[in-house]
Amino acid sequence: MKNIKAFCFDVFGTVVDWRTGVAFETEKLFARHGLSQLDPYEFADTWRKLYQPAMEACRSGQRPFTRLDVLHRENLEAALAHYKVNPAAIPPAELAHLNSAWHRLDPWPDVIQGLTRLKQRYIIAPASNGNIALITNMAKRAHIPWDLVLGAEVTQAYKPAPQAYTRMAEILGVEPAAICMVAAHNSDLHAARNCGLSTAFVPRRTEHGSVQTTDLEPSTTWDIIALDFNDLADQAGCWA
Amino acid sequence: MKNIKAFCFDVFGTVVDWRTGVAFETEKLFARHGLSQLDPYEFADTWRKLYQPAMEACRSGQRPFTRLDVLHRENLEAALAHYKVNPAAIPPAELAHLNSAWHRLDPWPDVIQGLTRLKQRYIIAPASNGNIALITNMAKRAHIPWDLVLGAEVTQAYKPAPQAYTRMAEILGVEPAAICMVAAHNSDLHAARNCGLSTAFVPRRTEHGSVQTTDLEPSTTWDIIALDFNDLADQAGCWA
Repeated sequence: MKNIKAFCFDVFGTVVDWRTGVAFETEKLFARHGLSQLDPYEFADTWRKLYQPAMEACRSGQRPFTRLDVLHRENLEAALAHYKVNPAAIPPAELAHLNSAWHRLDPWPDVIQGLTRLKQRYIIAPASNGNIALITNMAKRAHIPWDLVLGAEVTQAYKPAPQAYTRMAEILGVEPAAICMVAAHNSDLHAARNCGLSTAFVPRRTEHGSVQTTDLEPSTTWDIIALDFNDLADQAGCWA
Repeated sequence: MKNIKAFCFDVFGTVVDWRTGVAFETEKLFARHGLSQLDPYEFADTWRKLYQPAMEACRSGQRPFTRLDVLHRENLEAALAHYKVNPAAIPPAELAHLNSAWHRLDPWPDVIQGLTRLKQRYIIAPASNGNIALITNMAKRAHIPWDLVLGAEVTQAYKPAPQAYTRMAEILGVEPAAICMVAAHNSDLHAARNCGLSTAFVPRRTEHGSVQTTDLEPSTTWDIIALDFNDLADQAGCWA
């Protein structure tokens, strides 16, 4: 622990509750357009499911690196089409506003206090696939006290590509092990550990709703296993 | 003013007093190596004078984009050689430590309060030629409350190249005019204005010591002319 210089955080799911936030804004749009028969949570899941394939096109080199705001917008139109809703029937300003729901997500209740404590002794930064504007707008709205914004747009690589992790160490000018990757997703931590980063698992057991079956527990002995961000700050020796 | 979303700041000279900080650390190294006959302020000026030509090699495409820490190190060795000091005669750890003096510069007295006030209503970010680690370490040490770190390593362009300004707007997802570039250097503001950014001049009349002759006054009618960062916050409507 004493060699850690920076804690870098997965954001969607680990820092913020994307499903509730996206469903909340989707429900309002659906109500305005006579689509109240559609389940906004199911819609959020459908929209989110298109996330990995869209990034994979960039990771594989099939298309150049593209900001998540752009991928989200393409995926929004595809998700609407999946439910037989014609995106062209919705005013562009409303589609743009719903697309930016990802900029307006709320953190889990322990986040602000835990990060504020960690920030006293460590560099804290998002290591997200979200683009800089998205993460910055989210932080300003919710008062998330990042020291700086790292992530896909800075490293020009989408997790779990190794460069998404190794370039953070290069950029911060530290050894990979001096960065502790924090995530609620075991797969993110596996990829980080393969690149030599330290790892911390914080479960978010309702990220996918009350029936969640994945990432309920750590899949291996991560360097830190914490109950939430306050417990992480406790374990990192950052007292309130 | 009401359309401004972000204030982006030149750092060396505008936010921090690089000359005093670099001279202070240089003086200690000189004393340890029997070089007290050399003037550390003059040395700081010599070191700094190599900054623009080094970046120009990157701007012109003569060499690929290179982090400022690397350019600073090359320039440190060249500056020592200029004073007939053999860099190889100084332990590498001491050279590395002096090179990182740029990470340990103190802000002018009005900076922290002014930025803290501006941050309540605006995104605040450095728009520096300094690399991310340099700017982050400086901010952690001096408690400079940036929302995020922008600048050369994010835009992959050194000011005053137009991309150094236009890409900030692109990255933040706003019109160029929604970004107000803040600098103590008229040339930086001219380049920013040519790219459509808003501009604010804050004089730093002792950046180059008490005999400074440049940038004592605004060279034209910038959008904002402020006495210091607190006056800038006043003019931006951010009350203490």
